[in-house]
Amino acid sequence: MKLTDYLFQRLHQLGVKSMHGVPGDFNLTLLDYVQPNNLLWVGNANELNAAYAADGYARLTGLGALVTTFGVGELSAINAIAGAYAERVPVVHIVGIPTRAQINGRALVHHTFCDGEFGRFSDMAARVTAAQTRLHDARVACDEIDRVIATCMRESRPVYIEVPVDMVGAEVDGSALKSPITVHDAIPSQNVDAALEKILAKVKAAKKPMILIDGETRPMDMIKGVENIMKATNWPTFTTCFGKGLVDETVANFHGINMGAFDLQERQEFIKDVDLVFSYGPHNSWTNTHAYTSIPNPEITVAFQDTKLIIGGDIIRDVPVKVITDRLLESFAAESFNKYDTYPTISRDYAIPYSDVPDKDILAQDRLWHVMANFLRPNDVLLAETGTPGYGAREMPLPKGVRLFNPATWLSIGYMLPATQGAALARRDQSASGEDARTILLIGDGSFQMTAQELGTIVAHNLDVVVFLINNAGYTIERCIHGREQAYNDVADWRYLEAPKFFGAKEDTFTARAKTYGELKTILQDKRMSDGKGLRMVEIMLDKDDAPRGPLVGLMAKQKGN
Amino acid sequence: MKLTDYLFQRLHQLGVKSMHGVPGDFNLTLLDYVQPNNLLWVGNANELNAAYAADGYARLTGLGALVTTFGVGELSAINAIAGAYAERVPVVHIVGIPTRAQINGRALVHHTFCDGEFGRFSDMAARVTAAQTRLHDARVACDEIDRVIATCMRESRPVYIEVPVDMVGAEVDGSALKSPITVHDAIPSQNVDAALEKILAKVKAAKKPMILIDGETRPMDMIKGVENIMKATNWPTFTTCFGKGLVDETVANFHGINMGAFDLQERQEFIKDVDLVFSYGPHNSWTNTHAYTSIPNPEITVAFQDTKLIIGGDIIRDVPVKVITDRLLESFAAESFNKYDTYPTISRDYAIPYSDVPDKDILAQDRLWHVMANFLRPNDVLLAETGTPGYGAREMPLPKGVRLFNPATWLSIGYMLPATQGAALARRDQSASGEDARTILLIGDGSFQMTAQELGTIVAHNLDVVVFLINNAGYTIERCIHGREQAYNDVADWRYLEAPKFFGAKEDTFTARAKTYGELKTILQDKRMSDGKGLRMVEIMLDKDDAPRGPLVGLMAKQKGN
Repeated sequence: MKLTDYLFQRLHQLGVKSMHGVPGDFNLTLLDYVQPNNLLWVGNANELNAAYAADGYARLTGLGALVTTFGVGELSAINAIAGAYAERVPVVHIVGIPTRAQINGRALVHHTFCDGEFGRFSDMAARVTAAQTRLHDARVACDEIDRVIATCMRESRPVYIEVPVDMVGAEVDGSALKSPITVHDAIPSQNVDAALEKILAKVKAAKKPMILIDGETRPMDMIKGVENIMKATNWPTFTTCFGKGLVDETVANFHGINMGAFDLQERQEFIKDVDLVFSYGPHNSWTNTHAYTSIPNPEITVAFQDTKLIIGGDIIRDVPVKVITDRLLESFAAESFNKYDTYPTISRDYAIPYSDVPDKDILAQDRLWHVMANFLRPNDVLLAETGTPGYGAREMPLPKGVRLFNPATWLSIGYMLPATQGAALARRDQSASGEDARTILLIGDGSFQMTAQELGTIVAHNLDVVVFLINNAGYTIERCIHGREQAYNDVADWRYLEAPKFFGAKEDTFTARAKTYGELKTILQDKRMSDGKGLRMVEIMLDKDDAPRGPLVGLMAKQKGN
Repeated sequence: MKLTDYLFQRLHQLGVKSMHGVPGDFNLTLLDYVQPNNLLWVGNANELNAAYAADGYARLTGLGALVTTFGVGELSAINAIAGAYAERVPVVHIVGIPTRAQINGRALVHHTFCDGEFGRFSDMAARVTAAQTRLHDARVACDEIDRVIATCMRESRPVYIEVPVDMVGAEVDGSALKSPITVHDAIPSQNVDAALEKILAKVKAAKKPMILIDGETRPMDMIKGVENIMKATNWPTFTTCFGKGLVDETVANFHGINMGAFDLQERQEFIKDVDLVFSYGPHNSWTNTHAYTSIPNPEITVAFQDTKLIIGGDIIRDVPVKVITDRLLESFAAESFNKYDTYPTISRDYAIPYSDVPDKDILAQDRLWHVMANFLRPNDVLLAETGTPGYGAREMPLPKGVRLFNPATWLSIGYMLPATQGAALARRDQSASGEDARTILLIGDGSFQMTAQELGTIVAHNLDVVVFLINNAGYTIERCIHGREQAYNDVADWRYLEAPKFFGAKEDTFTARAKTYGELKTILQDKRMSDGKGLRMVEIMLDKDDAPRGPLVGLMAKQKGN
């Protein structure tokens, strides 16, 4: 078979049904293999957007892929690839590169520095990917493809594959395709028994345990396992920004995001006295941990990572998270470790009923997100862009099966709109019937401007997407940090609601603007919005100095004091 | 004085009047220094666009600058920085990075991989910039700034400056500002005399000499010098794609682009018999040389580079191009080396008068560009994006003082629209009166979609820009190369003429669409178009399989044959 057939069929086997990217002269013949291998081609407006979209796709399906061209294309995408590395997203970046003859002959081709050097860009890619290969030898090309993709899945990080133009149709022995790709499970060591004993001793001694679910639970492939732990123990369970939306948040012992020093007083009081924390998939960036204040005291923490535990600060290696979690679940099944005679009073995320907000009230960040929460339905995908929407969404109660994309660490504004395209497509690819495939984006004006053209891709592929555009006249999150009144935090003044039409949507596409709660309620309850198909867009007008609860409110108050 | 005052005042001294970029939390305090140092802040919609704009600015003024934030911002811009390297554009990329305490403490901050590593992105930047510095020591910060900026100007390549947040306001000894920055001239060696003798011997022996002006004439700062050579010799003078629009093209011995094997037969006949070529600033990429076919035979070539000559294939180093050119001009002043008793008949670029084209004829690439040429005026800036417009513009006669941006080697589609913003601003910054500051963009639909949001920046800064959007339903240049009928060469179907309004332009902004020459003529002669202010936009409808003369026509014919 042909090399590219092997590559694309392997990806298809692993759940990649759609391929994102942008054509370029070094990848055109490669693209001829997309459709014949039952992949949908999604031509994004540019490569950064394509990579963001592939990332959004991968966070839901477990694997995403994109194709770009040498130099110009791959470098445009590299910020998104770096983001996939930072937040552990398995994306396969395929780059069409010049022929082996051009490379070996140091030819002065375009998309180079005209210096005969063809390794510069792969060298840069190596800094932001977990594995790399250049498929220049047909004898080992299939092994190389499998090695790199397996690394992508094992580490849940992006990888990089270069395909020289003259290798695209090379004949390869594709017999390996008959067997599934080998992604090695972590190997348990004899440390497992001792670790289990240690943990159970802590569990037995604990009077006030809790669970903290962080975002690396997803790349660890432990969402189900953690959910089982949460349900088996009935311990109060919190999450982080990165972890929110992974497990079933409708269970009674789930309490939303632990906002550390920025949380409600009563929640801080509870957490202060906790004497044991099961911390799953910790990801301790400043932004994800509310300035490190929600990281639990290491002395009382059992941190579960891919292949190691950290118990009371001591690292125990080679204890695979799946193995130890299964062992714990066995123990919990045999003996109840419910530690609370009376379940403690800890607040939960809540929606504000429409009837509780006067129609004439002007929209503001303090109640907006709680009112918006009424719009959510089970199995929606909700994406909240870095900026005030990312903070706002942190307090929204999520119906069962809702997945949330929330800024964690990379925080590259502009990410969420293309990721919305990728996520919406992932939902459609995953559901045979196409039902329950609603994807909802909450995005600020500044972020929207970064990558707005992907609305065109959403329209072209007829994806079911609702966009809430927060118009607060610029980068409000930056105004909170510094330069509240500075012109550099302004953005150009677009007519946002003309976007769907400009980007090619049907003339009767639903658009609306809300300044008051009355207007917002009418919009949210409009059937064309909630049950419509294709793109829908709502502009929400907010004051430029208004910030949601949490760190931003305090920062803005400080700015106003200055 | 403060470190950032020093940096920005140095840039201002060197002609940077406007600073492009995007705010981010690690550069906000830095941006406080922009306006107080008399720099205009241009907040682009995203960082790639900001870097493209700074590049466009620098190609006209000789220096451009942009500010981005750590990680996410700088990596988004890196493709444009690489393009500046490939095509020798002096751009200063300033990156706001975390504090020294965070870096030294390996803090797990956002915009990192949460691994305490802060050198990864500068390491990537080093592969695409000529010099780099991190300003972590106030004692040497000014020296470092000067070293890096001098390298930028000397090599005409991008450079990279990291400013930790806690260094932004550091006190420095800024006394060096009183002296201009030292950009060392090339040092002539004793080789100069011998080289001059060698060249003059060749000149004396030559019967049929010609001049070839390539694009590195600009970074060599030799535009004036070459123009003088062209006028002093009266030899037939050709250019390349990269070189077109640098010198006065209205002089009688200027004959446009040498298209090598793709040129008109009569021109190929003439060039075949040439026995001496003065080749200024050669840049021998495949794309710039019509697949290497316009590179003159080395045996008859004197190639002038920054500090070396290549005569008949032999390299003579340490012969600065300015020194040897001045010496040649002295010789030419003393003795005429006009070699042509009768000046040879060689065609020139031409416009087709409006009256020569029937109104009802449908627009097509064969005549379109020659008709469009009537629209040009002295001192316009014309930007022709990679794709069919880039090829089309190669045949347009340019009035005096017109600068052309034409695809040479990097060919990153999407570049030209932000570069148009940068170029238009450069023209305004350079002209006190603001007159003659018309900037004209020719761009295809696929390229437009890449970076369309910069129309918003053009509107916000009220720049005088005319956009001709070539709507031919996708990537026609790729259709010529491969996949003529493949869906991957389609793009989303936007309503292009709604762009100005969507991006915030006044309701009465001039827009128009042309399918016939009659419509086009009416538009081009409309005073609102030719003499209007601000943004104007015209959509030109072309067949998706139609290509301009040159290599594309042949490729498309081959595709149709398949």
